[in-house]
Amino acid sequence: MSRLDEYLDRQRQQINAALGEVFPEDPAHPHRLIEAVRYGLLDGGKRLRPILVLAACEAAGGAASDAMPAACALEMIHAYSLIHDDLPAMDDDALRRGRPTTHIAFGEDVAILAGDALLTEAFALLARAALQRSDPRRMLAAMAEIAAAAGAHGMVGGQAADLAAEGQAVDLATVEYIHVRKTGALLLAAVRSGAQLGGADATTLQRLTRYGECVGLAFQIADDILDAEGETAQTGKAVGRDQALHKATFPAVLGMPAAKARLRELREQALQALAPLPQAADPLRDLVHFVVARAVGG
Amino acid sequence: MSRLDEYLDRQRQQINAALGEVFPEDPAHPHRLIEAVRYGLLDGGKRLRPILVLAACEAAGGAASDAMPAACALEMIHAYSLIHDDLPAMDDDALRRGRPTTHIAFGEDVAILAGDALLTEAFALLARAALQRSDPRRMLAAMAEIAAAAGAHGMVGGQAADLAAEGQAVDLATVEYIHVRKTGALLLAAVRSGAQLGGADATTLQRLTRYGECVGLAFQIADDILDAEGETAQTGKAVGRDQALHKATFPAVLGMPAAKARLRELREQALQALAPLPQAADPLRDLVHFVVARAVGG
Repeated sequence: MSRLDEYLDRQRQQINAALGEVFPEDPAHPHRLIEAVRYGLLDGGKRLRPILVLAACEAAGGAASDAMPAACALEMIHAYSLIHDDLPAMDDDALRRGRPTTHIAFGEDVAILAGDALLTEAFALLARAALQRSDPRRMLAAMAEIAAAAGAHGMVGGQAADLAAEGQAVDLATVEYIHVRKTGALLLAAVRSGAQLGGADATTLQRLTRYGECVGLAFQIADDILDAEGETAQTGKAVGRDQALHKATFPAVLGMPAAKARLRELREQALQALAPLPQAADPLRDLVHFVVARAVGG
Repeated sequence: MSRLDEYLDRQRQQINAALGEVFPEDPAHPHRLIEAVRYGLLDGGKRLRPILVLAACEAAGGAASDAMPAACALEMIHAYSLIHDDLPAMDDDALRRGRPTTHIAFGEDVAILAGDALLTEAFALLARAALQRSDPRRMLAAMAEIAAAAGAHGMVGGQAADLAAEGQAVDLATVEYIHVRKTGALLLAAVRSGAQLGGADATTLQRLTRYGECVGLAFQIADDILDAEGETAQTGKAVGRDQALHKATFPAVLGMPAAKARLRELREQALQALAPLPQAADPLRDLVHFVVARAVGG
């Protein structure tokens, strides 16, 4: 097992344990809403966002445990966005991570509410964590960062723009506009909130922000490439959906070779931003390799 | 114009102005998501929740302006819940406040996202407001209160239980369980967060909590009575929907005369909880009269 695999495994276990505690099972009083929340949140997922939170916190000199509430909140927000994006009125997806999507398994009404519950409880968790600190300001700054990235001018705004662009002829600027908001904003908020919770100084925060911007865009280009080239077994979801829905993607506007070149370029830029940072930033270095290698190999 | 009407008018104007600023119009770049958010949030509504926040803050000795961010957040959360509740997969309502519901006017996808945006931006607003305070703890406590009331064990949990109970034979305990969560939790959080932001001591907070519990339940019983007896012109929504959907309601399980008696009883209990409080609590006194009188007269 490689150094990165070991790191990812260890972090995933801690994140999954923490997420399970946010929504504990109650076999005595089974509750369909909580079952749906657990279905959408647990069992699966790369946990890239929360791992970025923890790794950025450590890169900035903090302890990963300081950032665990923000890590969980980011993953809960990500999970809610997947549940809502999969709904029939949105992307109408029946398969996610190799399993039926939440609305297929629990019904559309319960899926909408499960998403709403995940989003709300993410902020409840952050507020409770902030109240427990002697100085709640770092956690509050992380919360403001996360909420802005998830909101009308971030993720939700990007999803709205994506739906509006479906079936339209779009240019590179539009594709970047959509992706920066729909996927990039939350990945950037993961890195920035982790850095803030780790006590990053202004220069380090600036470097990690640049890293987060590159990784956010790289992740989406890699995802577009995988959707066009990958196999369901590898991606856990139906392949070629973007093309079938005439979605705005990088390979579609750039062509496949240029999309792959852009992806490698973003990897270099991300590594360059981290260059002056100490060994504690190695997991962040490994992570950008991981994100890019999924789509173009090592 | 009565003292209460003047008070409500003045507060509504300030709340509407503050809400409009959270989502400003941008005629140069019209944005369907923001239009849908403004459609669901502005133009209409009693603004009962934010008015309760401001009135409870003043009753506790604070200035209303201290509580305005929490007031706006509560109304944004209320507006999101209406947009999502009206969706075809949920209550499937086409009419709200005498106008087409958001998904009728903007499409189901935009309506889901508008609700998501309102919920997210409510917490963004609270986090920004807390960061601006020299001591953010009161605002954080209000935020934790509001998030818990809106979440899986509050409003969203109540809506899930309500949907699960549709068409089932339900008893009084089940109806109370649903309503305490679905409507009561957010009304209680309005009163409690306002009281906390106003600097209420433990005894005052306890009294206002009792008041908030009574008003929360009274509001729902009044709503049930209006749905069964009112007219569309008065309620702004289709009448008799609860019965058509076999919804759990107080008149259905208690009978109409007992439901009205319970409503009057809750008004007395609410006024009793406020008895030792000074004149600054008069708007809260007027508000419980207002809530009850809608359904059973003065």
